[in-house]
Amino acid sequence: MSKGTLTRERILDRAVRLASAEGLDGISIARLAETVGMSKSGLFAHFRSKEELALGIVGAAVERFTATVVRPALAPPRGEPRVRALFDRWLEWERHETTRGCVFVQLGVELHDRPGAARDAVADAQRRWLDALARAAAIAVEEGHFRRELDTALFAFRQYGVMLSYYHTKRVLASSDADRLAVAAFDALVADARTR
Amino acid sequence: MSKGTLTRERILDRAVRLASAEGLDGISIARLAETVGMSKSGLFAHFRSKEELALGIVGAAVERFTATVVRPALAPPRGEPRVRALFDRWLEWERHETTRGCVFVQLGVELHDRPGAARDAVADAQRRWLDALARAAAIAVEEGHFRRELDTALFAFRQYGVMLSYYHTKRVLASSDADRLAVAAFDALVADARTR
Repeated sequence: MSKGTLTRERILDRAVRLASAEGLDGISIARLAETVGMSKSGLFAHFRSKEELALGIVGAAVERFTATVVRPALAPPRGEPRVRALFDRWLEWERHETTRGCVFVQLGVELHDRPGAARDAVADAQRRWLDALARAAAIAVEEGHFRRELDTALFAFRQYGVMLSYYHTKRVLASSDADRLAVAAFDALVADARTR
Repeated sequence: MSKGTLTRERILDRAVRLASAEGLDGISIARLAETVGMSKSGLFAHFRSKEELALGIVGAAVERFTATVVRPALAPPRGEPRVRALFDRWLEWERHETTRGCVFVQLGVELHDRPGAARDAVADAQRRWLDALARAAAIAVEEGHFRRELDTALFAFRQYGVMLSYYHTKRVLASSDADRLAVAAFDALVADARTR
């Protein structure tokens, strides 16, 4: 990697952390430059506008999510084991993210009313993730683990709901019961999807 | 109602709208005063700090939610009909709120990292709502509509998840399928809770 690429990575790493905790509005170029230990003009050489920075943040967050959640979850056998691995790794991600806030939840809520490239990138990333969840459920149908007539889009919608409720219960309500409830809700969802 | 109370109501009505769309950070006393057609000092006579205003906003939102969702849902008979009425009215509320944003989702995400009276009030309101959902499910158990061993806290957690996923699918993903998915997810949840 070139020095420029490394610097860019380092800036984005810090920016994703800041955005997770306080959203895009919480990031000023000046503060970010200070955190990374650069001059404002040095940082501007990498990101010429706040929208460019926002796009970089979304891209970096997706990359981190893919490396931490998606790719390792492809190791178990196709079907229900992989559906479970996706959930387990995702829960682990949110568990970690809840210490400061999930970058996707934060940006989703912050940007939904602000049309533009950053909003589109967030929506696109989440749409692809829902598609991946539905596809994993469809493979579990193919493998005979889940029942034939399963609505896989609905399965993905419900799985997403379990995780949002987990995030909310842990972050907003600060409940110690969040982990138990999330696992029980997912187990119930899988039981409902299984061949009877 | 005294003139002072009416003015206060009018300010809070506007403030709730602004907070729904842009969060507390999107509200400046100056802009709010302008929207209501008052002077800044006139508005300060009602809310002396941003925290006092935030508390007023949460209180007004809870009152509106109680009047629109909770109270009318007590009309149907106890048990499953009431559980359904709570869901239907809540969905109607979110359907309406998704045109600009739900004040509770917005404040929940915005405040989770900011300890203080406003954050506590939001968490408290949402905790009471989850308790109400669990209690409605417990009554459905008493009535023999839902099975004896139902985990009512888990039922409430899952119901909350359906609604958060609905909100997210509609607002962030702008999907036209959100309503169908939310109703199907709730139906599946109720089917799973029923006496078999």
